[in-house]
Amino acid sequence: MAIKLYGDPLSPAAQRVRVALEEKELHYEFEYVDLSSGQHKKEPFISLNPFGVVPVLQDGDLTLFESRAVTQYIAQKYADKGTPLVPNDPKKQAIVTVWREVESQSFDAAASKISFELVVKPKLGMPVDESTVAAQEGKLASVLDIYESRLSASKYIGGDAYSLADLHHLPIINSLFHTKFKALFQARPHVSAWCEDILARPAWKKVVETMKH
Amino acid sequence: MAIKLYGDPLSPAAQRVRVALEEKELHYEFEYVDLSSGQHKKEPFISLNPFGVVPVLQDGDLTLFESRAVTQYIAQKYADKGTPLVPNDPKKQAIVTVWREVESQSFDAAASKISFELVVKPKLGMPVDESTVAAQEGKLASVLDIYESRLSASKYIGGDAYSLADLHHLPIINSLFHTKFKALFQARPHVSAWCEDILARPAWKKVVETMKH
Repeated sequence: MAIKLYGDPLSPAAQRVRVALEEKELHYEFEYVDLSSGQHKKEPFISLNPFGVVPVLQDGDLTLFESRAVTQYIAQKYADKGTPLVPNDPKKQAIVTVWREVESQSFDAAASKISFELVVKPKLGMPVDESTVAAQEGKLASVLDIYESRLSASKYIGGDAYSLADLHHLPIINSLFHTKFKALFQARPHVSAWCEDILARPAWKKVVETMKH
Repeated sequence: MAIKLYGDPLSPAAQRVRVALEEKELHYEFEYVDLSSGQHKKEPFISLNPFGVVPVLQDGDLTLFESRAVTQYIAQKYADKGTPLVPNDPKKQAIVTVWREVESQSFDAAASKISFELVVKPKLGMPVDESTVAAQEGKLASVLDIYESRLSASKYIGGDAYSLADLHHLPIINSLFHTKFKALFQARPHVSAWCEDILARPAWKKVVETMKH
């Protein structure tokens, strides 16, 4: 059964799914979607995802979108392949789910806005909105303070083992590490060590390679 | 094993967990957290949830926060009680997860900002920011257009059966139905019928009762 991932190598959401596929050592076909020409807003893509955003995953006859839903599917469907990404123990699984939600609701809510301003907009020749950056900086710093405390008691953000709760952070951490905001992570020793650890994983390094072409 | 829910009856996130507990016909103790005095930002609450927001659920020795993580836990742990909230079939489960993410990333991102402006701020005597309302109205309308199409082909948002993907919408739909934005839902026949259906569920009506005291 063939797996096909539709996306752009530079899309953080597509990278999120891609690193999950790499952790699971799955073969997949990558179908490039040309965002610059608006291919994601037209047929046939819009029939795969009515919201007109990448990524979309097809696994046999199943079509899925929303990156965090897709990684959850990959983690469960291919539980026995590659790196375990969700614990089997129901209590540990519930804690991972809590921190998956924290990534989405608190970390990403601030960090992806900063990444959009400082990384995406300059590439598109759009002016940076410094007031947005300033407003989100305080929010991100508060989240990272809580992460520092969490990571002083727990090796990974979702518990003692690497999981989707860590993996989901990778694309935006990688993006912000190309900006002055790297310092915000590095100022916190446990956060800094955690970033270094998860960014060094072979699966993530493979995804970084795909961004260079 | 006792279940305890910490929250405020008027908090949409607390209502989200409460309706899941009601669908599962679970007995639970409700511990009122006085948001007006900032009880959620102080000890002992802050040790339960370092982000200082309600709700928090305790089930035996397990402490969880983030409403959507808590409902997921309830749905899985108490799979055999009350209403099934997540399908057993892995493919159907993946589709429910997609639309759970849509609720969080697209619906709630717009709708909860409108609810905060039009419902919460007036109660707190804060001025409404009409520019925020206007900016989010277009986003919410686009999401509801996609919902209209989805619900013309599927009885519920996550598939043929009621699930967490529907349930997570209830608190904010209920809130917006007390504003002029009710018309935005009612203008779309399938969305309107879906709202009427899910708002009429006995579990939700029980939660509405708790808001009146």
